[in-house]
Amino acid sequence: MTDFSEYSSHTDLALDARDMAQAANHGQTIPGIETDSTRENGIRVTKINVLNEQGSKALGKMQGHYITIEVPALRQKDSQLQDRVATKFAQEFEEFLRTIGIRKNAKVLVIGLGNANVTPDALGPLVVENIMVTRHYFELYPNDVTPGYRAVSAVAPGVLGTTGIESSDIVQGIVEKSNPDLIIAIDALASRSMERVNTTIQIADTGIHPGSGIGNKRKGLTKETLGVPVVAIGVPTVVYASTIVNNAFDMMHKHFSEQTSNTGQILGLLDNMHEEERLQLVKEVLNPVGHDLLVTPKEIDEFIEDIANIIASGLNAALHDAVSADNVAAYTH
Amino acid sequence: MTDFSEYSSHTDLALDARDMAQAANHGQTIPGIETDSTRENGIRVTKINVLNEQGSKALGKMQGHYITIEVPALRQKDSQLQDRVATKFAQEFEEFLRTIGIRKNAKVLVIGLGNANVTPDALGPLVVENIMVTRHYFELYPNDVTPGYRAVSAVAPGVLGTTGIESSDIVQGIVEKSNPDLIIAIDALASRSMERVNTTIQIADTGIHPGSGIGNKRKGLTKETLGVPVVAIGVPTVVYASTIVNNAFDMMHKHFSEQTSNTGQILGLLDNMHEEERLQLVKEVLNPVGHDLLVTPKEIDEFIEDIANIIASGLNAALHDAVSADNVAAYTH
Amino acid sequence: MTDFSEYSSHTDLALDARDMAQAANHGQTIPGIETDSTRENGIRVTKINVLNEQGSKALGKMQGHYITIEVPALRQKDSQLQDRVATKFAQEFEEFLRTIGIRKNAKVLVIGLGNANVTPDALGPLVVENIMVTRHYFELYPNDVTPGYRAVSAVAPGVLGTTGIESSDIVQGIVEKSNPDLIIAIDALASRSMERVNTTIQIADTGIHPGSGIGNKRKGLTKETLGVPVVAIGVPTVVYASTIVNNAFDMMHKHFSEQTSNTGQILGLLDNMHEEERLQLVKEVLNPVGHDLLVTPKEIDEFIEDIANIIASGLNAALHDAVSADNVAAYTH
Amino acid sequence: MTDFSEYSSHTDLALDARDMAQAANHGQTIPGIETDSTRENGIRVTKINVLNEQGSKALGKMQGHYITIEVPALRQKDSQLQDRVATKFAQEFEEFLRTIGIRKNAKVLVIGLGNANVTPDALGPLVVENIMVTRHYFELYPNDVTPGYRAVSAVAPGVLGTTGIESSDIVQGIVEKSNPDLIIAIDALASRSMERVNTTIQIADTGIHPGSGIGNKRKGLTKETLGVPVVAIGVPTVVYASTIVNNAFDMMHKHFSEQTSNTGQILGLLDNMHEEERLQLVKEVLNPVGHDLLVTPKEIDEFIEDIANIIASGLNAALHDAVSADNVAAYTH
Repeated sequence: MTDFSEYSSHTDLALDARDMAQAANHGQTIPGIETDSTRENGIRVTKINVLNEQGSKALGKMQGHYITIEVPALRQKDSQLQDRVATKFAQEFEEFLRTIGIRKNAKVLVIGLGNANVTPDALGPLVVENIMVTRHYFELYPNDVTPGYRAVSAVAPGVLGTTGIESSDIVQGIVEKSNPDLIIAIDALASRSMERVNTTIQIADTGIHPGSGIGNKRKGLTKETLGVPVVAIGVPTVVYASTIVNNAFDMMHKHFSEQTSNTGQILGLLDNMHEEERLQLVKEVLNPVGHDLLVTPKEIDEFIEDIANIIASGLNAALHDAVSADNVAAYTH
Repeated sequence: MTDFSEYSSHTDLALDARDMAQAANHGQTIPGIETDSTRENGIRVTKINVLNEQGSKALGKMQGHYITIEVPALRQKDSQLQDRVATKFAQEFEEFLRTIGIRKNAKVLVIGLGNANVTPDALGPLVVENIMVTRHYFELYPNDVTPGYRAVSAVAPGVLGTTGIESSDIVQGIVEKSNPDLIIAIDALASRSMERVNTTIQIADTGIHPGSGIGNKRKGLTKETLGVPVVAIGVPTVVYASTIVNNAFDMMHKHFSEQTSNTGQILGLLDNMHEEERLQLVKEVLNPVGHDLLVTPKEIDEFIEDIANIIASGLNAALHDAVSADNVAAYTH
Repeated sequence: MTDFSEYSSHTDLALDARDMAQAANHGQTIPGIETDSTRENGIRVTKINVLNEQGSKALGKMQGHYITIEVPALRQKDSQLQDRVATKFAQEFEEFLRTIGIRKNAKVLVIGLGNANVTPDALGPLVVENIMVTRHYFELYPNDVTPGYRAVSAVAPGVLGTTGIESSDIVQGIVEKSNPDLIIAIDALASRSMERVNTTIQIADTGIHPGSGIGNKRKGLTKETLGVPVVAIGVPTVVYASTIVNNAFDMMHKHFSEQTSNTGQILGLLDNMHEEERLQLVKEVLNPVGHDLLVTPKEIDEFIEDIANIIASGLNAALHDAVSADNVAAYTH
Repeated sequence: MTDFSEYSSHTDLALDARDMAQAANHGQTIPGIETDSTRENGIRVTKINVLNEQGSKALGKMQGHYITIEVPALRQKDSQLQDRVATKFAQEFEEFLRTIGIRKNAKVLVIGLGNANVTPDALGPLVVENIMVTRHYFELYPNDVTPGYRAVSAVAPGVLGTTGIESSDIVQGIVEKSNPDLIIAIDALASRSMERVNTTIQIADTGIHPGSGIGNKRKGLTKETLGVPVVAIGVPTVVYASTIVNNAFDMMHKHFSEQTSNTGQILGLLDNMHEEERLQLVKEVLNPVGHDLLVTPKEIDEFIEDIANIIASGLNAALHDAVSADNVAAYTH
């Protein structure tokens, strides 16, 4: 499938990449990819392992482990559902760390990427605000820390435009001074579909790569650059306006191709148009406001706060044995 | 022209209505409508007077005076341009009040409609925060008020969903207790085009009508309901996702109709599709996230703050002689 | 006892008034006053009924019912204690409404007094933000409301300095348009003692009176002015700097009077000084920063948020049967 | 003079230290100290140079250059005065950098110390938000930067309690990765006197030392630890409650000593009390709320915002030639 956006040559979600690859493969399984999906109580959990070079190529995603948690009803402000999602997230995250070989008392640094003053980009900083931070107790009173906790620190490094320094440089400096065993990096993503916005959480052990996420990042946060494993947690919070238009074109194409009458011609025209002209059309439509028009639902303030609480609660429960999935909400506000 | 959105059967801006009416009228002047437009320094000011029933019908807008200030570059965070726009707004607003017969010392109540916790709907409350409020001095020390000021009060009445009371009822109660001579109501609007978002300010003496603005209002704020004139200030801060899709369809239609080859057929198909099917298509595209998907640019936090400062500065200068257009910025933050 | 502050000629808390009156009465019971006190789990609940004119005079408080909930440990950020206090508050508030004859389905208007932009004065607006508002459902769909709820609305009317209108006028206007059966007004108070700040909640059926609370109010919110009963909920969030100084003088006085040696003279001097000079001294000490120096603990942001959540949670549970004291926290954020 | 607070064994302002040292020295000049003071338009600027070990000992302050800008009227919300202070601050700061030998194009890293969520401790983070950041342009497009700017970056490293990492470690990591030539560190201070709160700005080339500022810092930010000069900008935003009490005791002492009558005895008693008992008394008065009771004026939100804007505006003008003292306000909000 052709991508009509000039802004983003990829999708940030492995799940979308898998779906597209599978569609392109006429629904057949893709070699080098393992997937597993369960659905319960309105929460769908899909695990995708990109096993080798072949799978990586097919998906356009790095080798590694991916978990996607989809909750279509998450935007309906149902606080009981939110609690269930936080609990599910905590369980999956804990298991994920085990799977990728992180030991129970590994020291964790949580990094909240993004700009705290731009609501749809504020997910990372908001999560960091609600992380239960304990590293300083381990440093100052190593013998007095209650069992059931591990050393956790948390930083929101800001964005290039407001600090003047690459966030990856800031993180690297902090890592060198504070010596964590694992980085957990939270970032807001751009999605290909409106319905994913604030309803989907992705966990991956592949780190953060240049060009992913909303902001402009020139360097990534990876095991290669930081020397310790980097688990990325991402949530789509914006879509490109061009994505909405593309979706409409695709719908229209599908619509006509389902009609039996003499629409062969129009389909042909549309198909011919795809490559050269559709891009041009999308540009014309969106031209007045410039290149990088990312849009977000009007209710973004509330959505972001809800999902940040879910992730922070879930991480607190997953990282500290003493915080159970039941009392998880008590630690956030 | 057909409107494909089920959500909004009208456009909130008189300028858009005029453009559409004029287009439908093959570019000819519309009877019952007076318009006048000037452009200077990147700021275009258009005055539209809807003179009679005929004009009102043609535009789908109430009889009255409309001013639109368009500043395409307003989203580029140029603080000098913002100052120029505030000054221009102050001049136009002062003249507007004169034109509609408001006397110099009329007591003013500024109403900031909208939800302070939903960024694109927070324009009204943000303006109210920066209004120079003086009414209490006139009430408490009527003989000691410095010349050059008039009695101004300002209230953000909240929205039905967070107060449980119609904002029009709250305003009516406040009007009865505080007896202003004029209401100025500020509201965020939904626009038909992305490029208008946070670049256009409309002033009108027709009040606020049910269904206008972003929120659900069942009653309006008008001279009929409140007993005093109501001047409305509106800024588009959101677009319907369906609007973006519609724009794309229109672009496509235009694209094909400009081609000479055998596209007669496809045009026919597209035209036939308009009425019944396009609406259906748009719904399919946007279905997953429900009806009322209003989207806003990612940078909305900053845009809203900038334009709220412009309006508050402009109102402070227009309402108080002692505040000149030069020192206008000193009173907001 | 002499009050050395020129700003406030009274204490806002009935409990403090009772203690002072009792002290002045050499520990004996005061006629016209009924009191009852229980303590459990770090929470002390004191009920004071001012039965008649005599009691009212003795305490300098209006006739009526007062409940004080004291939780000295409330500033220690213990979320489990906070939950217990919210539950206790809900139980006491529900019983209080019964005691003063409010019926189960009485329509309630919650008023959050104070300035949302001044942290220690923001208690009322913060509570209002977390109140579960239902009145509009009763108005719009009277036959479809789930049992277990009553009609609740909530408004933060702002303060005179930012609206230009007396908050009592705004409330009166809203009451006339929305016809509640009961007003619950939340306000931040000034306290005589630092230890009360953010640790004490007072409930009273006497309404809000001019001069009470932090801001300048010239009119009150009472049954007389509004036509319906007014229950006031108050929390001390500030102390006058002069109060701290006074406390120090009193301590010093007590210190010297406990010494047996030749301090008769000094005590005499101090006592003579009381009336004329102590006030002068306090003024000299505090002069540089002007009259109304109200101070608040550095950590006020967090304290205010915590106690606003407690009150909002408690009110939601007390007002709606469908909200139990157990799931109370789910409705606030 | 004895310090009665157990919390702070020093004053953060060189000016207070000089005054106390001078008072102890019976008004005579202190060897090893140079001072110079000017007053103009309600702004007093005092320069203190601690020349050697002897001066350092006398003042209890490190060797170095100190400038204090005092503006008693700064809390009166006069926007024209604020502009004058910003301009004065810019001039003094520019000259200060010259005096201590910082070259014109030195790359600057601005560090905003403190906790953004605790209003009186949020000065540093607030200043950082309004700093004109340019370093990334120099890194990405070194040949295209408009003349008149230098490379400036800005970071708010958070506090130990919310990150789990010493802010000095975070800063050190960032310095190593971004290689500035000069650090400017902004911090909120505790003051000995209420009147200094939010009216005084201190500039010093001695860096930030452990124990200074509001928060708990175990390491400092100095040339020794960071390898580049560190200029500290401090503003008192809180006082210890014990300071208020102490001031009252001192006033009382002064009051009695000015009386001619038989108060010799009481003075003796008070003097004897000083060392052992006054501390005890202060503790008794403040005991209920624990050790570290720092108080701040009720209006702190507004004061902090105003003074943060002054410092940010002033720094932007002082650091970039292209930003003149006249247009300084345009760059902050």
